[in-house]
Amino acid sequence: MMLPLPTLAAGALSYEQITVFLLAFGVLLGTARLFGEIARKFGQPTVLGEILAGVVLGATVLGNPAILGEDGVNVQFYEWLFPTYELEADGDPVEYITLDQADVESDNIRSSAIETDPPTYTLDERDVAGAKQKYDGGFLSMSMFLNLAAVFLLLVAGLEVDLSIVWKQGKAALWVSLMGMVVPFAFGFGLAYAIPEVIGYDPASDLQFPFALFLGIAMSITALPVIAKILMDLNMFRSDMGMLIMSSAMVNDLLGWVGFAMVLALVAGAATVGADAAGAAAGGSATTDLLVTVGWTLLFVGGMLTVGRWLIHKVLPTIQANTSWPGGVLGFVLTVALISAAATEAIGIHSIFGAFIAGVAIGDSKHLRAKTRETIEQFINNIFAPLFFAGIGLRVNFIEGFDFAAVAIVLVIAILGKVIGCYFGALWAGLSKRESAAIGMGMSARGAMEIILGQLALNHGLITEKLFVAIVVMAIATSLIAGPAMQVILRQKQKRRLEAFLSDKNFAGQLKSSTRKAAIRELSEIAAASSGLGVEQINHEVWQRELMMSTGLPHGVAVPHARMAGLDKPIVVIGQSNAGVDFDSSDGQLAEIICLILTPEEDGEVQLELLSAVAEAFSTEGARRECLEAVNFTEFKAALITNTDHHAAH
Amino acid sequence: MMLPLPTLAAGALSYEQITVFLLAFGVLLGTARLFGEIARKFGQPTVLGEILAGVVLGATVLGNPAILGEDGVNVQFYEWLFPTYELEADGDPVEYITLDQADVESDNIRSSAIETDPPTYTLDERDVAGAKQKYDGGFLSMSMFLNLAAVFLLLVAGLEVDLSIVWKQGKAALWVSLMGMVVPFAFGFGLAYAIPEVIGYDPASDLQFPFALFLGIAMSITALPVIAKILMDLNMFRSDMGMLIMSSAMVNDLLGWVGFAMVLALVAGAATVGADAAGAAAGGSATTDLLVTVGWTLLFVGGMLTVGRWLIHKVLPTIQANTSWPGGVLGFVLTVALISAAATEAIGIHSIFGAFIAGVAIGDSKHLRAKTRETIEQFINNIFAPLFFAGIGLRVNFIEGFDFAAVAIVLVIAILGKVIGCYFGALWAGLSKRESAAIGMGMSARGAMEIILGQLALNHGLITEKLFVAIVVMAIATSLIAGPAMQVILRQKQKRRLEAFLSDKNFAGQLKSSTRKAAIRELSEIAAASSGLGVEQINHEVWQRELMMSTGLPHGVAVPHARMAGLDKPIVVIGQSNAGVDFDSSDGQLAEIICLILTPEEDGEVQLELLSAVAEAFSTEGARRECLEAVNFTEFKAALITNTDHHAAH
Repeated sequence: MMLPLPTLAAGALSYEQITVFLLAFGVLLGTARLFGEIARKFGQPTVLGEILAGVVLGATVLGNPAILGEDGVNVQFYEWLFPTYELEADGDPVEYITLDQADVESDNIRSSAIETDPPTYTLDERDVAGAKQKYDGGFLSMSMFLNLAAVFLLLVAGLEVDLSIVWKQGKAALWVSLMGMVVPFAFGFGLAYAIPEVIGYDPASDLQFPFALFLGIAMSITALPVIAKILMDLNMFRSDMGMLIMSSAMVNDLLGWVGFAMVLALVAGAATVGADAAGAAAGGSATTDLLVTVGWTLLFVGGMLTVGRWLIHKVLPTIQANTSWPGGVLGFVLTVALISAAATEAIGIHSIFGAFIAGVAIGDSKHLRAKTRETIEQFINNIFAPLFFAGIGLRVNFIEGFDFAAVAIVLVIAILGKVIGCYFGALWAGLSKRESAAIGMGMSARGAMEIILGQLALNHGLITEKLFVAIVVMAIATSLIAGPAMQVILRQKQKRRLEAFLSDKNFAGQLKSSTRKAAIRELSEIAAASSGLGVEQINHEVWQRELMMSTGLPHGVAVPHARMAGLDKPIVVIGQSNAGVDFDSSDGQLAEIICLILTPEEDGEVQLELLSAVAEAFSTEGARRECLEAVNFTEFKAALITNTDHHAAH
Repeated sequence: MMLPLPTLAAGALSYEQITVFLLAFGVLLGTARLFGEIARKFGQPTVLGEILAGVVLGATVLGNPAILGEDGVNVQFYEWLFPTYELEADGDPVEYITLDQADVESDNIRSSAIETDPPTYTLDERDVAGAKQKYDGGFLSMSMFLNLAAVFLLLVAGLEVDLSIVWKQGKAALWVSLMGMVVPFAFGFGLAYAIPEVIGYDPASDLQFPFALFLGIAMSITALPVIAKILMDLNMFRSDMGMLIMSSAMVNDLLGWVGFAMVLALVAGAATVGADAAGAAAGGSATTDLLVTVGWTLLFVGGMLTVGRWLIHKVLPTIQANTSWPGGVLGFVLTVALISAAATEAIGIHSIFGAFIAGVAIGDSKHLRAKTRETIEQFINNIFAPLFFAGIGLRVNFIEGFDFAAVAIVLVIAILGKVIGCYFGALWAGLSKRESAAIGMGMSARGAMEIILGQLALNHGLITEKLFVAIVVMAIATSLIAGPAMQVILRQKQKRRLEAFLSDKNFAGQLKSSTRKAAIRELSEIAAASSGLGVEQINHEVWQRELMMSTGLPHGVAVPHARMAGLDKPIVVIGQSNAGVDFDSSDGQLAEIICLILTPEEDGEVQLELLSAVAEAFSTEGARRECLEAVNFTEFKAALITNTDHHAAH
């Protein structure tokens, strides 16, 4: 067992604090990414998996004494890795106590891997308390890191807001966003006064008015990234309706976050009132403080969206012309976001609000390049977001907090509010009933932003765990429902992706054949095995089609294909040929990648879709080379995917 | 003034802690990026500027009571924003004391922006101590964040190590890297015993053996990224000599970091000895502990570079085929690095070592795509690196720590050791004297890795501030010297970049002319004004050249040019033409971007270089469009740079 080194320089952290922090960080990130990907596989939002990762690692499952027993090694291990840390009511950390038994034991957990004689554990309350306080350095760092993650997430959300689109949409956007805010807000606000206890309001907190305001805002906020993803999947992001939905959602979010900042100021004001009443020595009257905060908030928002936005737009080309690329802009964007965040935190509203407004001001400039945006988004969406959402799952006991009535009511009201509001808004703006209903469903997706909002309210004692859990469930459920519901209403089809039709058993690898006829036969045999159709039947149809006109594309790709009676879903068989097979292509090159495409006879559309998907997939030299070099299906699929430009949206 | 909110959830940080953290983060990042870019403008390494940013913000200048006075508001403000935090000898944080006056005053500093009546300040030692301890949440987070930055930096360094290149270089790489380690190590080790006091060894620490080992290793380590950058600038990265230097440096770094990990284990062992001697209750003998740590270290390195490397190589295609791209790989790489880092920290050596080895194991796989690498490197090099290096400058008082003798000796020995060792190594491997000397100079560049090594040794009490400052100066100086020295030895020229020849006064903007002849005259007038040559002379020469053969390139770019007697440096004048000017291009398109290029008569090479640079710069449609749309020089330059593929190396 290692002792701390003799002289630690100022501010150094102990070996153990660093170990705990890095391990917790790594475990949280890895698990969150893994669960996120699993959710994605099942067509669910990534955020669902990320929260579940935290639920499994945290207070609900592995760290729950009720599940694994009070003195299970698991519980002790989780106490060590993800300590929960209580603060006294005044907000100051509790005093350090001398570390003795708990100390030694915790060390044992760490070093037990390299010790032959495993220690025996005893546990009493005192030990747990000691263990809790010892690792606060690492734990506070983790809290701060999660806070930073939230700041960065809101920066990305802000970057996606494009005010110029809003102006272009004009009246329709105004109506939809206005109605899409007012109705849900009224529903939420009313709910808080109608049945406060059912949805988990704590009467002792004496904060019913801010609580009602919060619930109203929570109902009226949307989730830009989720909506954008749904619209892209439905292939209607760039359509008129897509732009209308996006711009209405932007207005909703902007107003929603400004409103939420006000609510936080109000809560802080109430706290000051409480302090005053208790005779505390804090100077200044509570009402004045509140007004000052509101004033500063409005000044900040106004300033950032006018002067700040103009300044950023002016300064961006200078930065891009005179600094290293893209490092200069990257540093600039994060610096502005951080200082903005610190400013709002100092004003007395939350730091993420500053980051959001900074994002809006920066993202609005046409000088911000797609590459900068992409680098920021990739790192934040793939590293900070999983950590943040897993962190949420970690802290909250979702079993204890789950209340069916609260969940059901919040969910129904959340959907009804948005759908009704937006439906009438869109109708009055002149859209058809069908379109209006679709817009309502699209706007009802809440997603990640709702969860951040809820977490903040929970941290500030504005809501209880019961309502928080209901909000999380509502956010996820609405994100799940919105896409399919829009699809049904609009009778639209989702874009089909080539990857979805590829499989290990339909990967032929290197072909033995050297002629066109033999190659088609070789691929037909594989297709027959996986489709249940006869080899001769397939071979005949494809060859007849081939005789009509060669299916060789330029650059060494060939797509023999046919529509087959009796086939229920498309089949794509991939073959490689290093030697090349002559498919009589227009550029004279031999085909090195040969895709046999069979589609159901009755679905004319899917054939065209798949043919163009194949042409697109192999359009770059890199994709063709890597796909040809792949020695198995996994490598082939990896080569295909990593050479395609997808945008991973949350 | 805001009070903390009534009920803070477990682990919540106070408003002020968050404000301080975000503001410190933002100020540090912004200043570091700014100074880094300024350094870059003067052709210096970015890291120099980043450290300087910390020096200015930190203990050396703005936070130095000796400079701004004990009770200056500046000093108080810096105490608040970048607090220094003392730990007791046992490594546990000192106990909390009750916060009173200091508390209130610090709050005033924060809220003074929104208070009309500015508070008056008094300061005594107690207050400072109070202030120091209050913000430890934010401060510990910052320490942890800087630690994390170091972990990520070493991950990136590890990713750049490609062991397969090393094998391919064979004998030569072995000789150069071996001699390039042994000689500097001997020099450093000898120095530590010859004149320990001069270079700042503290005899009271009783650690002369590990101190000597450290100095030996510090002398033998190199800086891969710096060397790569130098080779790229000299246009010899892909040459035989470039690959030889790179692979030798990789071996050096690998062995150097393994050795350093051993030294840390030794120091930790020594600490245990001390603790044992003092009769402390820690179990296990010191020697056993040391052997256990060394054993685990070797097992870890061996395991990661064989089984780990193989596993990662196997699993990467699966991840890329089955997860979102590039998020899946990104998460995987960071998770492996973090858990690896936690593992080495638990073993008793430093976390950054684990990240480095993880980087080597991951970076070696050919399945890791360039895009993943780039996203990771961009975020880390542009966000974490500036923070880390500014953080170093922040803590150390460079004026107090600067000792001319120590700096001079360390610098001379560092250069001599590398040059002599590598020279003979390369000579024995069969290279020429000139090449051997160039390799020696190239290998002598130390850069960022040296500074991280030094900082770790400083934190662990192995070296004093005096030696640390000498090491930092040496690292920067060798990075500055290596490139120019190689250039002189090899008589090579640096690659010239188009941007270097562009300027505001040579930007013509939209041309009035609509014919080729008039356009050339219009551009010649601008060239005449800035070169001092006559308009007629320029116009005549360019037009004569144009008559010989048209200078219209495809896709709407034209490059009228001439070599001019009496010109001392090249001149490039840029003109845009929305209407287009007919330059008789092979594809029949009118020229929309017209670059007049004048070069000195005696330098035949630069003309060809500039012509090909122009062709390359406008080779993409995006670059041409954005350059044509630019309304001033800054926008034009920004368009040019952001459409070029530069790699920002450190």
